[in-house]
Amino acid sequence: MVILLPYEPLSPIRWHNGQVELIDQTRLPGELVVIRPRTVEEMWDAIKRLKVRGAPAIGIAAAFGLYLAVRDSRAASRAEFESELKKAANYLTTSRPTAVNLFWALRRVEAAVADAPTDNVAALKEIVLREALTIRDEDEATCRAIGHNGAPLLEELEAVLTHCNAGTLATARYGTALAPVYYLASRGKLLKVFADETRPLLQGARLTAWELHQAGIPVTLITDNMAAAVMSKGLVQAVIVGADRIAANGDVANKIGTYGLAVLAKEHCLPFYVAAPASTFDLSLKSGEEIPIEERDAAEVTHFGLKPIAPAGIDVFNPAFDVTPNRYVTAIITEKGIIRPPYQENIPRVLQGINFNGA
Amino acid sequence: MVILLPYEPLSPIRWHNGQVELIDQTRLPGELVVIRPRTVEEMWDAIKRLKVRGAPAIGIAAAFGLYLAVRDSRAASRAEFESELKKAANYLTTSRPTAVNLFWALRRVEAAVADAPTDNVAALKEIVLREALTIRDEDEATCRAIGHNGAPLLEELEAVLTHCNAGTLATARYGTALAPVYYLASRGKLLKVFADETRPLLQGARLTAWELHQAGIPVTLITDNMAAAVMSKGLVQAVIVGADRIAANGDVANKIGTYGLAVLAKEHCLPFYVAAPASTFDLSLKSGEEIPIEERDAAEVTHFGLKPIAPAGIDVFNPAFDVTPNRYVTAIITEKGIIRPPYQENIPRVLQGINFNGA
Repeated sequence: MVILLPYEPLSPIRWHNGQVELIDQTRLPGELVVIRPRTVEEMWDAIKRLKVRGAPAIGIAAAFGLYLAVRDSRAASRAEFESELKKAANYLTTSRPTAVNLFWALRRVEAAVADAPTDNVAALKEIVLREALTIRDEDEATCRAIGHNGAPLLEELEAVLTHCNAGTLATARYGTALAPVYYLASRGKLLKVFADETRPLLQGARLTAWELHQAGIPVTLITDNMAAAVMSKGLVQAVIVGADRIAANGDVANKIGTYGLAVLAKEHCLPFYVAAPASTFDLSLKSGEEIPIEERDAAEVTHFGLKPIAPAGIDVFNPAFDVTPNRYVTAIITEKGIIRPPYQENIPRVLQGINFNGA
Repeated sequence: MVILLPYEPLSPIRWHNGQVELIDQTRLPGELVVIRPRTVEEMWDAIKRLKVRGAPAIGIAAAFGLYLAVRDSRAASRAEFESELKKAANYLTTSRPTAVNLFWALRRVEAAVADAPTDNVAALKEIVLREALTIRDEDEATCRAIGHNGAPLLEELEAVLTHCNAGTLATARYGTALAPVYYLASRGKLLKVFADETRPLLQGARLTAWELHQAGIPVTLITDNMAAAVMSKGLVQAVIVGADRIAANGDVANKIGTYGLAVLAKEHCLPFYVAAPASTFDLSLKSGEEIPIEERDAAEVTHFGLKPIAPAGIDVFNPAFDVTPNRYVTAIITEKGIIRPPYQENIPRVLQGINFNGA
């Protein structure tokens, strides 16, 4: 890996010396292992096994996966090449069938090839790689813009609280919720971050604490149920989280536990910020009530790895996400600017020109 | 163990056929193992290793431990017997030096011997045993009265949320927060209980879920950060928790996470009940601000058993308790009756005759 400047977060996915490099996130926080998938099958496996995770990062990985699939293609014609590309894209979609960004990135690469004014297979291969790199670069630019836009909201504070991982590891670089933290740090303003561990899958303990620590940003790990005590002691002055989906009225679906933090922030008169790219908005949804909430396997709660921590056969309620009503959201930080209430009116105004259902 | 009626919770500590029987809580929820300490050293070890835990249960175990220490005494005089008793009490206090109920129970047994109108060593031995049994029986009666008094508050509800373990396993039997649940169940009214897993030590997953499941009471396990979603979906109609210490103004110190639940309950217009014996009140404290909050080892948060779940060397904030201000507490359920605001006025009124600093 490259030598990093202080406070510069690692990128979890890079194109380097003709190879894709991924940080194997299943080895974190114990070990920093970089893997180099050489075939589309190895990339499929990396996505499937969560070695790369986070919606934007998955999309980028999938786009590079397409290039790995066709790099050594011996297709004799454009039609044959496009057919190979389609087959590889269909294969990659089976790695994580519910990941919206994965479909979006694959379609985008296919469209770039379809639009290319050449029948030269070598040139088409280059277009696939270039589109993958563009997707990666655009995501980094988006995150950087979120950091830039969010920084003024946080720069006077001492510490913020975050939940789950909406950091560099989930994106090309910088993340969403953590982007303003990295942005400020690169300008010499070190915000302290309190990281919820985020049960049941512990993304906060395993990933957020790791990436901030790695970048030299002071981070304090807490269990989820300590957030209220942290707020009442005045240890944080704002909450900042990412989002999985935002409805037209500003209701926010995000990792389970987000809604509780929003209520606690309100009670302690702290601002509650959501940082997310424009692609997170789904204006076809009038409100958060229309957002389907995935319920996941009970074993995530009853077991720790393979070790049981609860009685066998116990009932479990394990929603992966919750919905935070718009009235708890102080502002939504996007690459296009900061959106404040009334959201119904201001979301389209700030995001104008964005294809809202294009994610 | 005895055959139980449906919904009758196990007692974690019993005197049976001339032996002390303890449920080894370190083996739960995987295995129900009953141990029979035969010496004061074995009882010391059981307390030290958390095989028995929960303030009232520790006090009872310590009292029985004193009996194990002197049961085979060959003391030739009352003075010699009392000296042996004192030595055993001093030894037992080193098992968990901060457990107030342990000191209280040991002093109470010593006082019973000091007050005894006999010099007969065999009779004094009987007094030690009788006092231990009395402490146990009184605690069970206290818990039963809490159940009886709290039942009318919950009997019309479908489900309640609880935190940590304030159940039968922490007391002689029935518990505090769970006592009304058991009381109602024994009368045919099955309340459903949502149990927070209660990080970092998982008392909710390991103990509360286990004891309710064991007693045939429907229980649903959630991670702590799911409580807000459970409330917003209307899945519970009240929150009920125990307490470690209650100040003169009704501020409540209890397991970390309790305060956050109280805020969430208020936001969802749900009653927030605290169930605790009169011995939990410390009227020498004007408010919760005077209650010292223990901060515990970072490894509880960063490790799961011996397995690290966070980066090495990370900062951790790990308070064991938090303080819930009285304005969030709908009522405090005690064996003497239900206390409602204004607490400053009503706590002494309901508890009159209690020795508030006698714990």
